[in-house]
Amino acid sequence: MNEVLRGQLMAAEIAEQPAALARLLATAADQIAPIADAIRARRPRFAILAARGTSDHAALYAKYLLEILAGLPVGLASPSTLTVFGSEPDLSEVLWIAVSQSGGSPDLVDSTTVARRGGAITLGVTNASASPLASACEFHIDVHAGPERAVAATKSYSNQLLALYLLIDRLRGGDGRAADALPEAAQAIVDINPGAEVAPRYRFVERIVTTGRGYAYPTAREGALKLMETSYVAAHSFSGADLLHGPFAMIDEDRPVVAIVPEGLGGEAMRPVMNRLAERGADVLAIGDPANAPDATVTIALPRGIAEEVSPILQIIPLQQLAHAMSVARGYDPDAPRGLRKVTETW
Amino acid sequence: MNEVLRGQLMAAEIAEQPAALARLLATAADQIAPIADAIRARRPRFAILAARGTSDHAALYAKYLLEILAGLPVGLASPSTLTVFGSEPDLSEVLWIAVSQSGGSPDLVDSTTVARRGGAITLGVTNASASPLASACEFHIDVHAGPERAVAATKSYSNQLLALYLLIDRLRGGDGRAADALPEAAQAIVDINPGAEVAPRYRFVERIVTTGRGYAYPTAREGALKLMETSYVAAHSFSGADLLHGPFAMIDEDRPVVAIVPEGLGGEAMRPVMNRLAERGADVLAIGDPANAPDATVTIALPRGIAEEVSPILQIIPLQQLAHAMSVARGYDPDAPRGLRKVTETW
Repeated sequence: MNEVLRGQLMAAEIAEQPAALARLLATAADQIAPIADAIRARRPRFAILAARGTSDHAALYAKYLLEILAGLPVGLASPSTLTVFGSEPDLSEVLWIAVSQSGGSPDLVDSTTVARRGGAITLGVTNASASPLASACEFHIDVHAGPERAVAATKSYSNQLLALYLLIDRLRGGDGRAADALPEAAQAIVDINPGAEVAPRYRFVERIVTTGRGYAYPTAREGALKLMETSYVAAHSFSGADLLHGPFAMIDEDRPVVAIVPEGLGGEAMRPVMNRLAERGADVLAIGDPANAPDATVTIALPRGIAEEVSPILQIIPLQQLAHAMSVARGYDPDAPRGLRKVTETW
Repeated sequence: MNEVLRGQLMAAEIAEQPAALARLLATAADQIAPIADAIRARRPRFAILAARGTSDHAALYAKYLLEILAGLPVGLASPSTLTVFGSEPDLSEVLWIAVSQSGGSPDLVDSTTVARRGGAITLGVTNASASPLASACEFHIDVHAGPERAVAATKSYSNQLLALYLLIDRLRGGDGRAADALPEAAQAIVDINPGAEVAPRYRFVERIVTTGRGYAYPTAREGALKLMETSYVAAHSFSGADLLHGPFAMIDEDRPVVAIVPEGLGGEAMRPVMNRLAERGADVLAIGDPANAPDATVTIALPRGIAEEVSPILQIIPLQQLAHAMSVARGYDPDAPRGLRKVTETW
C-alpha cells in the first residue's frame, strides 16, 4: 500500500474533530441536559466508571471532573470482579457510567447489567445508540462522532470527553459554556498540524514516556496508547507525581518525554516535575502553556484562554497527529494496526 | 562496586519475606482484628485507596479484595484532586485506606487529612508506626516488615498485601486461615530462586510486557515496576482483558510476555489471552499454574493449593528475583537505582 493510502482514514478522522465537537455541542440542551437533571434528582453519592482501551482514558477524565467539579468519590470498575469473580455489590446511590465507542464489548454489557441489578443508576456513553450497551443502561448519551473506521480511535475519544464534560458540568449546576470555544480552537490545531511538524524528531525513537497531572493525565495515557498502537513504540505514561517514584529511573538520553502542561493548576503542578527532568537532561516535548515548561526541548503551544477542565479535548489532537505521522513515516498503516480488531471481545 | 556487593540489600530483603510474613501473621489477632471490627461496626459503603508507586499496587490488590470479598465499591484516589485542585468531597460512609512504606509522602498525608475532615473513616497501612501518615489517620496498621534499606521495595510490599488481606477478610467475617500457608510456601520459592534461574534468557531484553487478571493484575503491575526501576527495561503491564485492546499491537518476537496464571478463576480467565499470545507466536514466561498456560515458552510453577486471593503474595517473589538478577547481570545496582530516592516527596 502506498504512503498516500496508509493512514488516510485516521487522518480524515483527526481532521473531522472540530465538526464532530460542534455536532455534539448542538445536542447539549436537548440530549445531555435532561439526562444530567434526571441523574441529579436521584442524588448519587458515588460514581463508578467502566471502560476499556481508549474509552478508559475518557473515563479517567470523567473521574477528575466528578471529583473536582461535582465532589463525588469515584471508582474505576474492574469489570472482572463482577463478571469473572461474580461479586454482587450493593450499588444503591451509585452512578455507574460505562463508556465505549462501539457499545459492543461483552464484559462491559455484562458488568453493567450486574450493576443495574445491584441498584446503580446506569448511564452508557457510546457512539452507537443501537448497541447492546446502550440497551443495557437506564440512560444513554450518543457522542455523535459519526462512523469511525480507523482502528485507532480519535474523534470518538474527543467526543466522549466533551459528552462527559457537558454531563458532569450540568450535574454540578454549570452552564457548560467553557466548551463553546473548543470547535474553533480544535480547527486551529488541525490546520497547523503541530504533531506532524515535530514528528521527524521522533522517527527512530523506540521508547517514550508521557506525563501530566490532574485533567491532563488522561491525555498522557491516551497519547501513549496512540503511539503504541500505531507506531509500536514502547510508550509509558505516568502521572507527574508517580513519575518521580520508581519510573524516574528509566529516564535517560534515549527516552524522550512528552509532558502535558496546560494553563491552570494541573499544569502549574507539573513545574517541579519539569525541573527534575531538566536536571536529568531529559529531552522533553511540552504541549500546552510554554510558561509551565521553560526548559523544554520542543514546545507545542496550544490556544490560550481555554478552561483547564476542557483543555484535554484539545491536548490530544497533536498527539494523534504525532502518532499518525510517526506510523506512516515508519511504513506502518495506522488505520489497521497489526493484531487489533475494532471491536474487542473480552469477558 | 563489585558484583557481590551490588544488590545485596535487595537480595537479603527478598529472602527475609517468609520471616516477615510470619511476623505479621502473628499480629493478626491482636493488631488487625480489632481494627477490622471497629471499621465494620461503622458500616462503610464505599472505599477509597490512596498510594503511590509500589504501595499503589498493594492498594490495587486491596481493591480486588474489597470488591470481591467484601462487596464494597472501590475507588483509587487521585491525590491531586484533593491537594492540587482543592476538592472537598463528602466522604461520610467512606473507608479511606492510605498505603505507604515510609508513611512520609506529603501528598498522601495531606489528602488523608482532607479525607478525614470530609467524614471518611481513615486507615493508614505503613511500615513506620511513628510516621506522619500514621498520625494523620484514625486507624493504623503496622505491616512489620522491619527496616527496608534497598530503594526497590520488596518485603514491605508482600507484607502490605498480607496486612490488607487479613484486614479485608476479617471485614467480611472470614477467619484469615488462607494466609497460614504463606510463610512456608514463600520459603520454598526463596530456596529454589526460580526468578534467578530464568534470568539469563532475559539478559538482553529491552522491552517486556506483563499481564494478569483479577487478583493477579497487581502482580503484573508491580513486577513491571520492579523491572523498570532495577533494570531500566521498558516494562508494560496490562490486565489480560486490556491487553487485547490497543496494546496487543506491540507484541512481537522481540518483546517477551510475563503472564501471571494462578490456580483459580482469574488464572482460568487468562486462557483466551494465552491462546491469542500463542497464535501470535509470543515468547511467554508463565508464573502460577502450568495448566493455565500449556503453550508458554517457560513456566515457573508456584506451590499448589494456595487460595487465589492470597496467591499474589507468592507470585511477586519470582519477579523480584528476576528483577534483581537481571539488574546485577547488567552491571547495575538494584539497591540504589539511578534518579530515585527511598522517600519520594510529591505534593
